[in-house]
Amino acid sequence: MSVARIAVVAGDGIGTEVTAQARKVIDAVLPGVDYNEYDLGARLYNRTGEVLPQAIEDELAAHDAILLGAIGDPSVPPGILERGLLLKLRFDFDQYVNLRPSKLWPGTTSPLAGVKPGEIDMVVVREGTEGLYVGAGGVLHKDTPAEIATEESLNTRHGVERVIRDAFDRAQRRERRHLTLVHKTNVLTHAGNLWSRTFNAVAAEYPEVTTEYQHIDAASMFMVSNPQRFDVVVTDNLFGDILTDIAAAVTGGIGMAASGSVNPERKYPSTFEPVHGSAPDIAGQGIADPAAAILSAALLLEHLGKHGEAARVTEAVAAEVASRTPGAPLRTAEVGDRVVAAL
Amino acid sequence: MSVARIAVVAGDGIGTEVTAQARKVIDAVLPGVDYNEYDLGARLYNRTGEVLPQAIEDELAAHDAILLGAIGDPSVPPGILERGLLLKLRFDFDQYVNLRPSKLWPGTTSPLAGVKPGEIDMVVVREGTEGLYVGAGGVLHKDTPAEIATEESLNTRHGVERVIRDAFDRAQRRERRHLTLVHKTNVLTHAGNLWSRTFNAVAAEYPEVTTEYQHIDAASMFMVSNPQRFDVVVTDNLFGDILTDIAAAVTGGIGMAASGSVNPERKYPSTFEPVHGSAPDIAGQGIADPAAAILSAALLLEHLGKHGEAARVTEAVAAEVASRTPGAPLRTAEVGDRVVAAL
Ligand SMILES: CC(C)[C@H](C(=O)O)[C@@H](O)C(=O)O
Ligand SMILES: CC(C)[C@H](C(=O)O)[C@@H](O)C(=O)O
Repeated sequence: MSVARIAVVAGDGIGTEVTAQARKVIDAVLPGVDYNEYDLGARLYNRTGEVLPQAIEDELAAHDAILLGAIGDPSVPPGILERGLLLKLRFDFDQYVNLRPSKLWPGTTSPLAGVKPGEIDMVVVREGTEGLYVGAGGVLHKDTPAEIATEESLNTRHGVERVIRDAFDRAQRRERRHLTLVHKTNVLTHAGNLWSRTFNAVAAEYPEVTTEYQHIDAASMFMVSNPQRFDVVVTDNLFGDILTDIAAAVTGGIGMAASGSVNPERKYPSTFEPVHGSAPDIAGQGIADPAAAILSAALLLEHLGKHGEAARVTEAVAAEVASRTPGAPLRTAEVGDRVVAAL
Repeated sequence: MSVARIAVVAGDGIGTEVTAQARKVIDAVLPGVDYNEYDLGARLYNRTGEVLPQAIEDELAAHDAILLGAIGDPSVPPGILERGLLLKLRFDFDQYVNLRPSKLWPGTTSPLAGVKPGEIDMVVVREGTEGLYVGAGGVLHKDTPAEIATEESLNTRHGVERVIRDAFDRAQRRERRHLTLVHKTNVLTHAGNLWSRTFNAVAAEYPEVTTEYQHIDAASMFMVSNPQRFDVVVTDNLFGDILTDIAAAVTGGIGMAASGSVNPERKYPSTFEPVHGSAPDIAGQGIADPAAAILSAALLLEHLGKHGEAARVTEAVAAEVASRTPGAPLRTAEVGDRVVAAL
């Protein structure tokens, strides 16, 4: 019997290269994983016009987790693969916890003056199945002066409460035990009220977690002026999309940014992927940094309950990154080898 | 006959202090302005429960512009004054161009390592009367497990086109002539499509302006990793709210952040105000920095067609800020005096 069934969607561009390293590292800490590879992304779309055939999605559903590299290619119009694959999996597999840790690792440099490795260490828990991402909206009188386009943000108590609860659980397990709710309650009064009422109700169950509320505009500013103040952040789908990119930027860009689109109940598989894209400009050269992909594999291991293995991988990546000579060229496979050696 | 009729809403906290300096500077470059003061903000609300009585709004409408300090006080629940005054004026006075220049001035320091004064110089043109700010939405089954809350973003061709056109006009008048559209077209497909189709249509009329599109998450990241790349940015109401705060953060915080909520046709008065709040913690001590308020007065002068006066004020503020001793305490009135002297 296999220790875990992982679907591998290496995807486009550097996706295949970094995913190979992530697998190498998983195998080193957790032998016996059963992998199935799925060739999804630009190639399939360009060949068949399909992004995620139903039969494939059904197969994916039978896995414990999905390890994803990156999708996207200049040959495919923007939005098609993102919506048809990434977002579709988030919705169909009820991946309501979109998990994005941001840490300023030793060996990396923040664009912020005077901010030192170790000082920034946060996790953004972004809602993944509601809000403005549901696709509700439409266009009327297209291409006339009377045209109107709408987008609707849908927020349910069910959806808001479960992700807030997950964020409190995570905050409770961390050293600082601090949770910040980010929204825009002074303008988005209906959804904002649901979020903050639910947040306060759940907070009562976690007396050890200190809490704070910030508007999205203020939070975005603090991400730059004082990112040290954040521990765990919980927010809606769109605000989370924005905040996590700022968090990645202040911790030195997307080179180390891992993410998980998680269904905590494990009723459906969760997807783990680096935040970076397929980077067609450097694809095929073996020079992509696999750190974010390997850290995503650590999130995957954590999700499967392999806490010791996850911690070992994370520490090995940290050690490898800290040992790099600044400015020296990097070979994808060598980074993977060095991480394995550091395990 | 007065040269201009300006309604002064000095507001709460440091609002009154900084606004006095802005008036002092306006008077020095443009004698003969006719001011009317309106005591709006926390005091009026706490006394009467009203934020903007209709009769007052009618009086405001008869002015060329509104000079606003800051509103907000801990005694008033969050959102009430913001929505009842600031946002109400934006909507009722059709202030569809929300103008926010961000510049890294000599004498100020960016939190970004290695970014030098003069290197960041951008204007965000934020739509001010549509999008998620319209207040459309609601709550159903409140306080039950079945609760749902919605927020609707409304975007019209009319509203999108006029603000995009304004942004192209501004870009055309600047040295770099570069305009970036920011949206989230890969997820908000309906509104995103309206925005980008309209952007491309208007772009055809401005062959000298180079254009670019960025998703809001990428733009937020670039604001940190490479803010130098932005010249003029046009975006919707909510994205503009977030982006301008990041832009303020990377140019050293809100100390120099001016804004105008502009009705370009001058059918209604436009509002000019510093981006900072009423700062109750330092109110009444005469130590608030009036630079942002005075720069907002310069935007006001510009809007009234007083281009020479506006430029003189901006340069005088720049000179005053550049002459400051870093870390030295600051007196609100002395800053105003030094700006006047530098004119
Ligand atoms: C590709 C895009 C649809 C996606 C999102 O907006 O969620 C991406 O930006 C992300 O953050 O995973
Ligand atoms: C106070 C608030 C309603 C307002 C906004 O969201 O527009 C403020 O953040 C701003 O940017 O002027």
